[in-house]
Amino acid sequence: MPIVVQKYGGSSLAAAEMIRAVARRIAASASGGVQVVAVVSAMGDTTDELIDLAHEVSDKPAPRELDLLLSSGEIVSCTLMAMALRSIGTDAIALTGLQAGIRTDTLYGRARIHSIDAQRIRTELSAGKVVVVAGFQGITDELDVTTLGRGGSDTSAVALAAALDARRCEVYTDVEGIYTADPRIVPDARKLEEITYHEMLELAAYGAKMHPRSIELASVYGVPVYVASTFGDKPGTLIHGDSGSFPNRAPVFRSSGDLINGEAEMAEKNPENMENRVKVTGVAHDRNVSRITLRGVPDRPGVAAALFEPLSNVGISVDTIVQNTGANKATDLSFTVARGDLQEALERVRSVADSVGAAEVLSDDSLSKISIVGVGMLDAPGYASRMFRALAEARINIEMITTSEIRITCIVAEAQVEEAVVALHSAFGLDAV
Amino acid sequence: MPIVVQKYGGSSLAAAEMIRAVARRIAASASGGVQVVAVVSAMGDTTDELIDLAHEVSDKPAPRELDLLLSSGEIVSCTLMAMALRSIGTDAIALTGLQAGIRTDTLYGRARIHSIDAQRIRTELSAGKVVVVAGFQGITDELDVTTLGRGGSDTSAVALAAALDARRCEVYTDVEGIYTADPRIVPDARKLEEITYHEMLELAAYGAKMHPRSIELASVYGVPVYVASTFGDKPGTLIHGDSGSFPNRAPVFRSSGDLINGEAEMAEKNPENMENRVKVTGVAHDRNVSRITLRGVPDRPGVAAALFEPLSNVGISVDTIVQNTGANKATDLSFTVARGDLQEALERVRSVADSVGAAEVLSDDSLSKISIVGVGMLDAPGYASRMFRALAEARINIEMITTSEIRITCIVAEAQVEEAVVALHSAFGLDAV
Repeated sequence: MPIVVQKYGGSSLAAAEMIRAVARRIAASASGGVQVVAVVSAMGDTTDELIDLAHEVSDKPAPRELDLLLSSGEIVSCTLMAMALRSIGTDAIALTGLQAGIRTDTLYGRARIHSIDAQRIRTELSAGKVVVVAGFQGITDELDVTTLGRGGSDTSAVALAAALDARRCEVYTDVEGIYTADPRIVPDARKLEEITYHEMLELAAYGAKMHPRSIELASVYGVPVYVASTFGDKPGTLIHGDSGSFPNRAPVFRSSGDLINGEAEMAEKNPENMENRVKVTGVAHDRNVSRITLRGVPDRPGVAAALFEPLSNVGISVDTIVQNTGANKATDLSFTVARGDLQEALERVRSVADSVGAAEVLSDDSLSKISIVGVGMLDAPGYASRMFRALAEARINIEMITTSEIRITCIVAEAQVEEAVVALHSAFGLDAV
Repeated sequence: MPIVVQKYGGSSLAAAEMIRAVARRIAASASGGVQVVAVVSAMGDTTDELIDLAHEVSDKPAPRELDLLLSSGEIVSCTLMAMALRSIGTDAIALTGLQAGIRTDTLYGRARIHSIDAQRIRTELSAGKVVVVAGFQGITDELDVTTLGRGGSDTSAVALAAALDARRCEVYTDVEGIYTADPRIVPDARKLEEITYHEMLELAAYGAKMHPRSIELASVYGVPVYVASTFGDKPGTLIHGDSGSFPNRAPVFRSSGDLINGEAEMAEKNPENMENRVKVTGVAHDRNVSRITLRGVPDRPGVAAALFEPLSNVGISVDTIVQNTGANKATDLSFTVARGDLQEALERVRSVADSVGAAEVLSDDSLSKISIVGVGMLDAPGYASRMFRALAEARINIEMITTSEIRITCIVAEAQVEEAVVALHSAFGLDAV
């Protein structure tokens, strides 16, 4: 029997009656000829409450203990879900990250999954049970509990889908799918029927509802991801492989015999959709941006490595990097990190700044990122200039610019990000197809 | 360096500021020339709240999932305690039951410890850390999480003290020690400086603040247990080995070199204390009593086994058992179980009642148990009759009577238990020495 992995976010599990409602949904799936593995986040705001509690006893909670603390949130939700399933006659078992065989490195707070030993899950599925797995958590070789970082339950779900060779990974949340922009800011934002991993990767990294690591993982293992609303039956968004211009992509559909309803239709429609696709798929934004600038950096080899390796070693993701060539073989180098990482990043950077001979280290923690995303933008000229003009007409100053094959990103003041989203959504005709 | 195990109950950890206060206490111990292993219960009413939550999603939560759910409470408290210790400069690490190597059987909700692999704890202690262990929980051979039953953190602490060959196990709670009766009922109740395992076992089983299994375990392994208030410096009560009439007792003090302050004094005083001891040490009571009566049971071999083995198999403790010989080779047989076990016990008993030919099964769930406890009562006549007379004068009806070497117990209506405690405390001169 094929396996489907379903992931339910914390906002879908905020109270006992919501857990019971989700249990009914899982039970319906389980009676429909598939084996279900359900991955759950912590209930509602549990994770934030636990973090607050940690800060009540310690200014700087130890990362190992913080991870163990936070892991309790998903233990509560997975056990309650298994109980709720049994109470409506669907046999179920709750498994912690350890019991589900999710092995990670030791980078507490943002651990990466090394491998999954799915033996226990397979045994329980074979016994006819729905397996409810605590998301967001794993275990090191020393049996210490780790967490995968905020939003990491998405990663748990996709990794399990890959390890179990699941038909697809379904991510249920409090929105109906992936939109062309944040619907809370742009009322005319449209829901997408489908989106490629690479497009989603750009959107996710810039504000949409899936953790980018989970999309990367889905892309590498060719796991189709279906994002939809937990409560309601409206069709969601299918995230799948490209049929176009990206090398080394993994196959999305392993065999046509494996396809289930929506996917089979989607697979047939894909070629036509790809051809007629509008160039800009959506507008994404991220308020969680801070910038560090090194002024007067000598322009010689090894400087970037000396600067970014210490950050990488402690697991800090550096996002946008911009280096401007200056006079006298010295340059200004700016990069962005998540705000929560700013202080630690600054400490590391300052200790390197002297040794590489930088003149000055500056920082700014009130920025946002706004991006337009779409396959094929580079083949069609004028998108960047249209973006810059739209921002200029809205009197929004651009602090930094970067581009990729399928994305153009501007860093702007946080105070102006909503105006920027509205302006770009309109400028690229996303309000109506 | 000698090891001390300290256990802190949930009422001592009900809020962040209490956790910080306990951390200061642990830190003071750790700086006093001992290695500290701290065993913690869940914060405040967490366990009850989690049970309520389970009942919101399921009428009959699965025992395996319920145990995993409840284990999250101690994970929260042990991680917060380790954080609080580090924040005041005392290096510490939090360990789950699994990480602490506490292996149990698979009897969910009342698992028994099979063995402890203390390697990880020893490694962390050697690294100079305070080890904070999640109480109440263990792990099966299949890596499923179990709980040891309510009050099981006491058992965790004593078992760890035994496995680590600790100097002693200190149990900190919201009362200052062991009293001659419940001080909330008898204002004149006196705190005991010391009490033997066997006396404590009787008191604990009948309402005092230590889980009886933990006292049994301490007795078998000769672990001295010191019970005192978490907040305050008044001396508590030392629970230790008998110097008198019990065979096969374990040695309390392994070597005089191992003794620390209070214990050395206590050891010297013991012989004299034992001689001059009042015969009745205290009055204990337990409101959590329900009774099952089988009427008209044929008086032949194997009936008791047929009746009690099914209860034992599902882990239900049968307490007081009374069998009255009747006419026509038929007897009435009554026994008590905890109220939470009554329904399941009734189910099991009813299915056996027919096969053993019992005429009728009755039950009563509004009883209490009251006992007087003291070494040497059997050598001095008249204690039982004084007890019965005191109860009679208070117009309290006695439903059942049992006695042991050091205890006389009456089952009375729950509504009268407080009057009974007051009456007996006064009748045996416990108000003043």
